[in-house]
Amino acid sequence: MARAWSLKTRPQGMPKHTDFAMIDLETASLGAGEVRIANRWLSVDPYMRGRMNDVKSYVPPFALGEAMQGGAVGEVVESNDDGIKVGDMVLHMAGWRDEAVVPAAQVQKLPALDVPPQAFLGQLGMPGMTGYFGLLAVAEAKAGDTVFVSAAAGAVGSTVVQVAKAKGMTVIGSAGGAEKCAWVKSLGADAVIDYKGDVPVVKALGEAAPKGIDVYFDNVGGEHLDAALAHANLHARFAICGMIDVYNSGAATQLKYLARLIGNRIQIRGFIVSDFMSRADEFYKDMGGMLSAGTLKRQETVHEGLETMPDAFLGLFSGGNTGKMLVKV
Amino acid sequence: MARAWSLKTRPQGMPKHTDFAMIDLETASLGAGEVRIANRWLSVDPYMRGRMNDVKSYVPPFALGEAMQGGAVGEVVESNDDGIKVGDMVLHMAGWRDEAVVPAAQVQKLPALDVPPQAFLGQLGMPGMTGYFGLLAVAEAKAGDTVFVSAAAGAVGSTVVQVAKAKGMTVIGSAGGAEKCAWVKSLGADAVIDYKGDVPVVKALGEAAPKGIDVYFDNVGGEHLDAALAHANLHARFAICGMIDVYNSGAATQLKYLARLIGNRIQIRGFIVSDFMSRADEFYKDMGGMLSAGTLKRQETVHEGLETMPDAFLGLFSGGNTGKMLVKV
Repeated sequence: MARAWSLKTRPQGMPKHTDFAMIDLETASLGAGEVRIANRWLSVDPYMRGRMNDVKSYVPPFALGEAMQGGAVGEVVESNDDGIKVGDMVLHMAGWRDEAVVPAAQVQKLPALDVPPQAFLGQLGMPGMTGYFGLLAVAEAKAGDTVFVSAAAGAVGSTVVQVAKAKGMTVIGSAGGAEKCAWVKSLGADAVIDYKGDVPVVKALGEAAPKGIDVYFDNVGGEHLDAALAHANLHARFAICGMIDVYNSGAATQLKYLARLIGNRIQIRGFIVSDFMSRADEFYKDMGGMLSAGTLKRQETVHEGLETMPDAFLGLFSGGNTGKMLVKV
Repeated sequence: MARAWSLKTRPQGMPKHTDFAMIDLETASLGAGEVRIANRWLSVDPYMRGRMNDVKSYVPPFALGEAMQGGAVGEVVESNDDGIKVGDMVLHMAGWRDEAVVPAAQVQKLPALDVPPQAFLGQLGMPGMTGYFGLLAVAEAKAGDTVFVSAAAGAVGSTVVQVAKAKGMTVIGSAGGAEKCAWVKSLGADAVIDYKGDVPVVKALGEAAPKGIDVYFDNVGGEHLDAALAHANLHARFAICGMIDVYNSGAATQLKYLARLIGNRIQIRGFIVSDFMSRADEFYKDMGGMLSAGTLKRQETVHEGLETMPDAFLGLFSGGNTGKMLVKV
């Protein structure tokens, strides 16, 4: 019998294990055009926290008591579609479960690139595209720029660090703790700030970027965003990808340096990766090439077994991952 | 003997009368290429507050004990330049004084438009250009957009209201008190919010713009900016022109709705009017035409006499002006 995680109660603030419940899924026979997938890899991502609230957003909220959704990679074990064969490895959104039945139109065969399948949930998937297009298209970063990126040890941030270095930029990353900072440095970052250290981020960034920053890639908001405003150069561009600081707390962001927007003509843009889906080929070509060539390093934090999925998800908010957080089924 | 206002002490927080002192200027004979101007109209503008601090900014700080600078319109009374004749009316930056001696290269003959000379310190001057290019170029506002503008009764804001209406937009203005609100309405605004009233701005804006806003033109920051974030539509564009809320207090801005940047792909851009000087001809043609045709209304709050200049300046921060604040010499 297939099983899935469901949301039992809507979290107030930080989610708890008791907000989740495992449910059994009926083993339905396949309808026309459907495929059955044995999931191998499941993704947990910070944006999923937003779907746990019952509010209008860019993705609809999870329904209570039903199987949750999310990125997944699996092997087709049964198919009622001519284009998808048993044995194909596919990417789809029916995650948080061990087996999925979905219309073939909603699955994507993994591109033929020389990388392991779970890379399509990380650097070659949604987090990778987020970092790639956020840096190059939203923030319009170019060779010679000094780039600051928060949560630089995360799935998105570590992609930003490496793409920025590969494209000739100077990179300052922020991460929490000596181990993560060392890993970010090993990815090629020119300087790393430990935001859990004694020095306030605004001071540490001033020391790491004495000539200021041209680009800020924001995954966290709050103190990091304010520090970026404090040190932004003329015509700096900020890509706002996430504000993990406020996803759970709902607290107001305090910005002391916001008025620097004016004199320095700073541009701030929020974005969602799905806006760039039409440019996926360009992304696969450039990133796939860099991954195959070893220019980019891959790092995963893997939890084993469907049972561990809430642990993996909650770990995103307590700094529990280096690189992409995954569950191996 | 010519006289000028100087800064005696750098203000802490809100400036006081005792921060200013009148000084005598030596009546120098004209050097080569210089002109002597009898000033007729002097401008006070919120950005001048920034020049009173001894910090690096987009305009250098005022030097203590020396004549201050600012926009002025006057009549040439003596000239050592072939291009400028006695009797010419000119625009220049040697304001805060009754008579100025400046290089001819730093004065601009008033364009031949059918408007009174002080209009070149208001709608046809720096505040007008700020509103015009901030709305149309920085915020990329277009016909059909719903535009929210704060300080809508000010020199910049009242231009934004009228240009937006002339270009086919829906406009919501915010101003303080019944009298200013009535005036903003008379300029054509579709709805007006009295920010000094009992209803929080975020609630009032929701009622005035039930379908949300596409553009926000920010003159004040703070609560108004947060309200705009709360009600911004998909792909909304914000032009950040001023943050009068923090010029004197230096307090942190508290934003509860900042994370809406992401899902709604909001773009925020700070700007300075001087970036658009190369497009002045386009501005004079369009705005001059609208002013001559009576499409735009002009409003001034006039203080009489050089002695009143600090009063006029301080009035900018206590809501003392409707339309452009001017001093008539």
